[in-house]
Amino acid sequence: MRILLIGNSGTIGSAVESLLKERGHQVIGVSRSSSPALDTADQSSVSAFFRAAQDRGEQFDAVVVTAGGTPFKPLAELTAEDFATAVTNKGIGQIAVVQAATPLIVDGGSITLISGILAEIPVPDGLAASVANAVVDGFVRNAAGALPRGLRINSVSPTVLEESWEAYASAFPGAVPVSGAAVANAFVRSIEGIETGQVIKVW
Amino acid sequence: MRILLIGNSGTIGSAVESLLKERGHQVIGVSRSSSPALDTADQSSVSAFFRAAQDRGEQFDAVVVTAGGTPFKPLAELTAEDFATAVTNKGIGQIAVVQAATPLIVDGGSITLISGILAEIPVPDGLAASVANAVVDGFVRNAAGALPRGLRINSVSPTVLEESWEAYASAFPGAVPVSGAAVANAFVRSIEGIETGQVIKVW
Ligand SMILES: NC(=O)c1ccc[n+]([C@@H]2O[C@H](COP(=O)([O-])OP(=O)(O)OC[C@H]3O[C@@H](n4cnc5c(N)ncnc54)[C@H](OP(=O)(O)O)[C@@H]3O)[C@@H](O)[C@H]2O)c1
Ligand SMILES: NC(=O)c1ccc[n+]([C@@H]2O[C@H](COP(=O)([O-])OP(=O)(O)OC[C@H]3O[C@@H](n4cnc5c(N)ncnc54)[C@H](OP(=O)(O)O)[C@@H]3O)[C@@H](O)[C@H]2O)c1
Repeated sequence: MRILLIGNSGTIGSAVESLLKERGHQVIGVSRSSSPALDTADQSSVSAFFRAAQDRGEQFDAVVVTAGGTPFKPLAELTAEDFATAVTNKGIGQIAVVQAATPLIVDGGSITLISGILAEIPVPDGLAASVANAVVDGFVRNAAGALPRGLRINSVSPTVLEESWEAYASAFPGAVPVSGAAVANAFVRSIEGIETGQVIKVW
Repeated sequence: MRILLIGNSGTIGSAVESLLKERGHQVIGVSRSSSPALDTADQSSVSAFFRAAQDRGEQFDAVVVTAGGTPFKPLAELTAEDFATAVTNKGIGQIAVVQAATPLIVDGGSITLISGILAEIPVPDGLAASVANAVVDGFVRNAAGALPRGLRINSVSPTVLEESWEAYASAFPGAVPVSGAAVANAFVRSIEGIETGQVIKVW
């Protein structure tokens, strides 16, 4: 398959890219620093990227997002702007990708977004991430039946990765990290499988 | 109790206001057209309202929101901006209220937000509302344990109201509407009860 992977240079993105290539797929990796660039937090960047791809006659069998950070702070320090930033970067940014990418995805193709365990299990500084992840999972559960031409959509919701454990362990008391390879397999399940409207949990 | 009710003039707000008054509570109703006004979609309006209330030494036993509309359109017509509007008006707007109101709520007081059935059950034109409701429910489930001084927080998630049925029936095929009084009782359950972190469903 020809797969667009937004955020391919990241911790999760690089694990997904390796596994997809191992499985024989062609991966087109993009991010804010690729050329052409794509910034999911900037709707005009998203529109411009997919318009240019359409002009070049590009099509994708699958579109995958593994990008989108959120502020981490205790509730008392989180401003409404922090929540808005989290929701824009991770939530609305991925929705913008779905809206702009849909016409370029082949019949029966798929979209896989990234959310995370904080949608359901709170940690002390993770409130803004929780809300952003809830946007992603809420969108996926509700959009599945409304996509055209048999397109499927799922989110992958990981707990902390082993690869990120050193940085995040203190923020996730009691969490049991999972490998990047396990998370990458959840993306394969979404891309090569038949599920739609699902939050694929890796925890 | 002394209760701030944001959106008291609306379909749900007026049902909540009646029942709260019937139960002996003092209700301070505000909206974009009250004086002083409060626009939940405008963070500076939210901050200014609660700063002025604080300067007057006001306190609340409960803060309740029944405001916040969202665009209704099929997925193919919804732009990423429509999603952002929905999330800002209904989701981030209510979070802004929580953040600004918290210092003015008495120990053990409560906050009750409005979400809606579309967070979980999709209808053809309700995608943006689904995502906004997911923000509200996600925030409530995750913020409950992080609020100070025994404050509680819940959301009330109604299906379509009988009072709104004429306008919405065609958009909610197969829905069974509920009365404004039933929805108002869910707010009483949140305000007078002991629950926290709950999505109180009226459907
Ligand atoms: N790591 C974990 O333990 C973990 C667990 C659960 C969920 N998650 C979620 O998974 C996602 C990725 O996490 P990660 O740890 O892999 O992050 P990361 O290592 O920081 O990588 C982020 C990747 O996305 C790209 N990117 C960042 N912002 C972007 C934007 N606005 N537009 C386009 N590309 C962008 C980055 O490249 P450029 O800088 O070149 O743009 C990079 O390729 C996040 O949403 C995170 O919340 C992570
Ligand atoms: N009606 C239903 O069947 C139903 C079912 C499930 C969920 N809901 C949800 O319940 C909420 C209220 O619905 P409703 O039908 O009662 O709406 P409504 O009749 O239109 O009333 C909205 C109320 O909120 C106020 N308001 C609107 N925008 C505001 C803002 N930005 N800041 C402050 N106040 C604002 C309005 O007064 P001003 O115009 O003066 O500001 C009015 O008092 C919405 O979030 C809706 O999605 C409704």
